[in-house]
Amino acid sequence: MVSRTPSATPPSARADRGPAAGKASGAAAGKPTGKAAARADKGGNRPRRRLSVDERREQLITVALELFSCHPPEEVSIDDIAAAAGASRPLVYHYFPGKQALYEESLRRAGRELAARFEEPAEGPLSERLHRVMGRYLDFVQSHGPGFAALLRGGSVAASAGTSAVIDEVRQAAHEQILSHLAVPSPSAGLRLTVRAWIANAEITSLEWLAERSLPLEQLQLQLVQEFVASLTLTAAREPALAVELAGFFAGERPEGPAGRLVRDLAGLFTVPGIAEAVTALAVLPPPATPEPVAEAGQAAGPAPA
Amino acid sequence: MVSRTPSATPPSARADRGPAAGKASGAAAGKPTGKAAARADKGGNRPRRRLSVDERREQLITVALELFSCHPPEEVSIDDIAAAAGASRPLVYHYFPGKQALYEESLRRAGRELAARFEEPAEGPLSERLHRVMGRYLDFVQSHGPGFAALLRGGSVAASAGTSAVIDEVRQAAHEQILSHLAVPSPSAGLRLTVRAWIANAEITSLEWLAERSLPLEQLQLQLVQEFVASLTLTAAREPALAVELAGFFAGERPEGPAGRLVRDLAGLFTVPGIAEAVTALAVLPPPATPEPVAEAGQAAGPAPA
Repeated sequence: MVSRTPSATPPSARADRGPAAGKASGAAAGKPTGKAAARADKGGNRPRRRLSVDERREQLITVALELFSCHPPEEVSIDDIAAAAGASRPLVYHYFPGKQALYEESLRRAGRELAARFEEPAEGPLSERLHRVMGRYLDFVQSHGPGFAALLRGGSVAASAGTSAVIDEVRQAAHEQILSHLAVPSPSAGLRLTVRAWIANAEITSLEWLAERSLPLEQLQLQLVQEFVASLTLTAAREPALAVELAGFFAGERPEGPAGRLVRDLAGLFTVPGIAEAVTALAVLPPPATPEPVAEAGQAAGPAPA
Repeated sequence: MVSRTPSATPPSARADRGPAAGKASGAAAGKPTGKAAARADKGGNRPRRRLSVDERREQLITVALELFSCHPPEEVSIDDIAAAAGASRPLVYHYFPGKQALYEESLRRAGRELAARFEEPAEGPLSERLHRVMGRYLDFVQSHGPGFAALLRGGSVAASAGTSAVIDEVRQAAHEQILSHLAVPSPSAGLRLTVRAWIANAEITSLEWLAERSLPLEQLQLQLVQEFVASLTLTAAREPALAVELAGFFAGERPEGPAGRLVRDLAGLFTVPGIAEAVTALAVLPPPATPEPVAEAGQAAGPAPA
């Protein structure tokens, strides 16, 4: 549907193409405007040679991705893409049936690039791993801003079953990465939900950040990681099996890492007049005879093995 | 297929039709299938009279909302709506240019209904107010399941700028309600973000619940409220001004409420072997025997006035 399979060049000739292209577009993320034009000079005009079918297709996707990263999809035309690629409009149509197909293909490319940023070696404290991943994620958000925002907001006219599938795949990749780092033998429905909700939190938070940029990106990065640690802790408070894993998680953390800072930040709250007293009062169980779900909760949700 | 609209009775005879219909649709939420057909019997056949223009429009919206609540929009046709309303296809088109318009209108109706459920008197502990609101919200989710899911997932072919606007309005209503209950003089960007992210959490969590129903709705309700309390606490740990408000918030809570249960659940975590030690080590200064990390007022982010 998207394109006819190109058949001229031997696939091996450009085996490293995909990742390389992804890297280039990521590296130039800082100042996206005019980037496509620059690429057009480089790829379309300067070398002044005919691109192979594979190369041309790659180039169109790369150029489209850059344009869609800087502008909402409805503001990008096939003519813009053709101009930025140093190609003719009919040539673009030769490769892609229309803007939507090109948009979806460039989104798939972006999705793969984003998913690749979630990859992180399973070494060191968990919160620090997540902190590194979030740094790469937020870098992506920053560099693919408007296109990313329009799409995730769902208000984009270019949203479709195809684009939703891409987004779902990226979410799924994030989900799986996190679960693999948590290395919990069999993640409960509750834990999965926690991870899923935190991913939504990260999406929403970064979208809001894009719109307002009301705090430094580093702070957002730390904040999201700490929110994950807090969500995990909350889930563990409901799930005894996870609570045991949580002990190992905290044992692997360092005071100077995101989890350590979180612990100290929360401890700091107890110096605020009234908080320690109020929280202590809440910690006292009401009379045990109460038929409320409260009484049961102590047993059901409490992680203590008794 | 039911009959075409008969034409005898005076409109005043059923002047209460609109609101009553709305209420009926809410009450019958539990078993939506076949509901529209039942309505068709009631509205189309039994009274055997011509509806006024306003009434007919109301009825079409109500019937459409019921169908869209039970089925993804792409599975509902104008014919289905006409049949369920006991009306002809041309008659439906007389009122609405097409399915999309009717879908958006019924969505607006649902959005208003949902937003109305967020209304809660500013009385009693904050977490208990939120708990009541979440009960009504989850009830809505349960009764409008598939339509709600398709729409929020963004994978719906019926998604549009119009539907996005409705969803955004509902989110905005939720946002404002929460801020009004928090009653923080001038909510910071950080607090607004926390609220926004928590709303996303509630959406995602309820969507996942719809798909899997892996835990009782009451548990989800409690969980979401506790996650809000945790998020608020985390934000307060970063924002001294909010920390002062947090003291008042906790002081107003009751041990048997959601916040009290949360405190005890978290305290329970400290009985899990290894957790207290690990957390204490992260806090740098070893605290006394208290379960909570009362140790040090984090200087950088701690809310203490130094």
